[in-house]
Amino acid sequence: MDERNFEILLDLLKQGKFGTLKTELSELNEVDIAEFFSLLEPKQQLLVFRILPKDISAEVFAYLEPDDQMNIVNSITDRELRELVDELFLDDTVDFLEEVPANVVTRVLKTADKETRQLINRFLSYPENSAGSMMTIEMVQLHDNLTVAQAIETIRRTGIDKETIYTCYCIDKARHLIGTIDLSELIFNEDATLLSEIMEEDASLISVNTQDDQEYVADIVRKYDLLSVPVTDNENRLVGIITVDDVLDIIDEENTEDFEKMAKVMHSDEPYLKSSVFKLAKNRIPWLLLLMVGATFTGKIIEGFENTLAAFSGLVAAIPMLMDTGGNAGNQASTLAIRGLATGEIELKDFFKILFKEFRIGLICASVLAVCNFVRLFLLQFVGWSSGGLDVFMVICAAMFCAVLIAKIIGCTLPLAARALKLDPALMAGSLITTAVDAIALLIYLGLAKTFLSV
Amino acid sequence: MDERNFEILLDLLKQGKFGTLKTELSELNEVDIAEFFSLLEPKQQLLVFRILPKDISAEVFAYLEPDDQMNIVNSITDRELRELVDELFLDDTVDFLEEVPANVVTRVLKTADKETRQLINRFLSYPENSAGSMMTIEMVQLHDNLTVAQAIETIRRTGIDKETIYTCYCIDKARHLIGTIDLSELIFNEDATLLSEIMEEDASLISVNTQDDQEYVADIVRKYDLLSVPVTDNENRLVGIITVDDVLDIIDEENTEDFEKMAKVMHSDEPYLKSSVFKLAKNRIPWLLLLMVGATFTGKIIEGFENTLAAFSGLVAAIPMLMDTGGNAGNQASTLAIRGLATGEIELKDFFKILFKEFRIGLICASVLAVCNFVRLFLLQFVGWSSGGLDVFMVICAAMFCAVLIAKIIGCTLPLAARALKLDPALMAGSLITTAVDAIALLIYLGLAKTFLSV
Repeated sequence: MDERNFEILLDLLKQGKFGTLKTELSELNEVDIAEFFSLLEPKQQLLVFRILPKDISAEVFAYLEPDDQMNIVNSITDRELRELVDELFLDDTVDFLEEVPANVVTRVLKTADKETRQLINRFLSYPENSAGSMMTIEMVQLHDNLTVAQAIETIRRTGIDKETIYTCYCIDKARHLIGTIDLSELIFNEDATLLSEIMEEDASLISVNTQDDQEYVADIVRKYDLLSVPVTDNENRLVGIITVDDVLDIIDEENTEDFEKMAKVMHSDEPYLKSSVFKLAKNRIPWLLLLMVGATFTGKIIEGFENTLAAFSGLVAAIPMLMDTGGNAGNQASTLAIRGLATGEIELKDFFKILFKEFRIGLICASVLAVCNFVRLFLLQFVGWSSGGLDVFMVICAAMFCAVLIAKIIGCTLPLAARALKLDPALMAGSLITTAVDAIALLIYLGLAKTFLSV
Repeated sequence: MDERNFEILLDLLKQGKFGTLKTELSELNEVDIAEFFSLLEPKQQLLVFRILPKDISAEVFAYLEPDDQMNIVNSITDRELRELVDELFLDDTVDFLEEVPANVVTRVLKTADKETRQLINRFLSYPENSAGSMMTIEMVQLHDNLTVAQAIETIRRTGIDKETIYTCYCIDKARHLIGTIDLSELIFNEDATLLSEIMEEDASLISVNTQDDQEYVADIVRKYDLLSVPVTDNENRLVGIITVDDVLDIIDEENTEDFEKMAKVMHSDEPYLKSSVFKLAKNRIPWLLLLMVGATFTGKIIEGFENTLAAFSGLVAAIPMLMDTGGNAGNQASTLAIRGLATGEIELKDFFKILFKEFRIGLICASVLAVCNFVRLFLLQFVGWSSGGLDVFMVICAAMFCAVLIAKIIGCTLPLAARALKLDPALMAGSLITTAVDAIALLIYLGLAKTFLSV
């Protein structure tokens, strides 16, 4: 949808041509209608919401921003609210309720029928980010003694309100999950074939538990290229499904969390543009403070060597470069290790292989950088941009060599250590690596300077 | 699949019980069979590959690591190779061919029939990471004058070799894409309904062009919750589709690239554990060198203030902490901006809003850090860990305030500037921000020291 089309729709709305507007809107994809909503005033949103057919307005509602959802829910009658909740998929209702204040939740629960109310309450009680809190209950359930023709007939009769009909779930009388069957299998098999003959079962039946973390769910869907995955309770009863479009959202969320952790920002569910300045500052200050206090050690190290630093021109000037290069080298190693752990390419058992590899990579990088740095310092002295003479340059480059090598080793070790300790490896990136490497690099640098540059 | 099951399979293989092995394997998901392959010797792989039914072996082949794929292709006969290419989806064949040496490509092309050969050649000529290079041609194409019953009949007859039958594509006589129709629509509509009445068309028809970047394809699939998206050429003729499972892989790849760019490592398609040490070092050295040379300026700045630094104890010791804190503050802002741009939450037009926001966040963070740092320095002097006295502390904290504020502003500006210049915002993270902030922070710090601390 380009913006010009939205303007045409806006004009229709302003001119009160609701009939034409309704026709035009129903030509659009629900995602685009939701985008159109974001351009409207609260009163206009309510108007357009009421113009749309009930099934479409519910679909659009699921795609709206939480603020807009709340505006509509606060404005519609109890009866309209009940109809909306009836039309919505349960997972969309729960997503919405997780974002709004308690009084809105109460009103939704009050207008819903008893069964829906119990369901919503159960869903809201699953741990955050668990499969249970993500799933929806609108799935096709079939008994395995049906024939293909009976199964298709059942889908035709009951499938219209389901979130997907492309994977159907076979259950026994006690609602245990015993198999899955793709709609394509039903289409390509003979009418008289029994589901029990063609369903995926036993070793090839893939499911997750309500308590499983959403990251695990995403891994399973990605690994097996599924369109939806069944969710079972501890007694292996089928209680819901999670579809691939929700998995795409999970993957986005997990990656955002990894980026935040690497940048040492505390996680926030609220979008950046809508968060208050105080909230954003509050999410950033703790780590900044912690790392600042951590830098106390580097200060202490430098104070211990103040005489050496004062005696030789050029020593202090190299500190930022040494620190930065060490930090950069360490971050390269740690980021690759963190990403490898996240995608499953690297596992804990590979630790010694990775350590040896990074040691060798470190040797190459450290040698190249040390030599280049020597050349740089040597040449810069002729334009007065470096000072200290050859023996100072030698100390700087030897320190550079050690700093890069140690940075590579620390950089790959910390994320794997975090994984071993059941912490999130993504925490072991960026400034945490930099702070650790800085202290060690300075200690080596000033130690070398004190030893080899005799006053 | 747990590892114990793989051991049972391995035992069957070693004992030569191929019949039982075949039965056990055919119970498994192809993804798990591919995992089993990775545990086998080359000769065993070939043996198991030949035991499997042709359709399953082709599916397993698509999930194998490139090395294992090459081992098999190099060992099988021309006839087996032709059968394999016939069974594979075209996108999987192309994925495989993109990873292997030219002689293997030549052999595959030589054994393929003329039509397949032409298709493969066309696919290999699409730009890397374009929709054309990602798509597959195995889609269901229907004419819009069919009835629902005729359409289902067509799918039953021709759909078995298609990558998906859940979204079907309506074309006119000149193969122009004129609509899409979900299989669920066919299931829920009356047999006599014409496709032209129920298909998605015009404004709600979503497609991509062969030249579109894979990132755009992923955005579209994610935005509209699609199971597959049609790919058209410049004349709007339907030439292929991209399915959601491939989009999951694209998203992984794009995120990995972002992580690499932020850590200043050059991109490599090869997995870390399989890359040579030299290649990995080669991907890291250019950025390290560039940033090291960039740090020349910080060295120069310090040299310009050597007298001031020498005159006041405690000034040098604060340099690492100032640099680190500035870098950390800048990285928080830049990472959030980069991620916001990647997920589409932030756009270029929000620049001034973001700048003003980061300015205010910067004010809060800078004030809190400056005050805390003053308290830290004040207290540490009693245990001999800080020196310089109150006026030096004041200068350090004033510099800290400026560094954090400027870091936030630079941190949010650079990624948006990169986007405006059509560069990748992810480059503007980590060490690039740190290097820029370091130089400015030092200049302010030493300028303040020289001005306010009179010798």
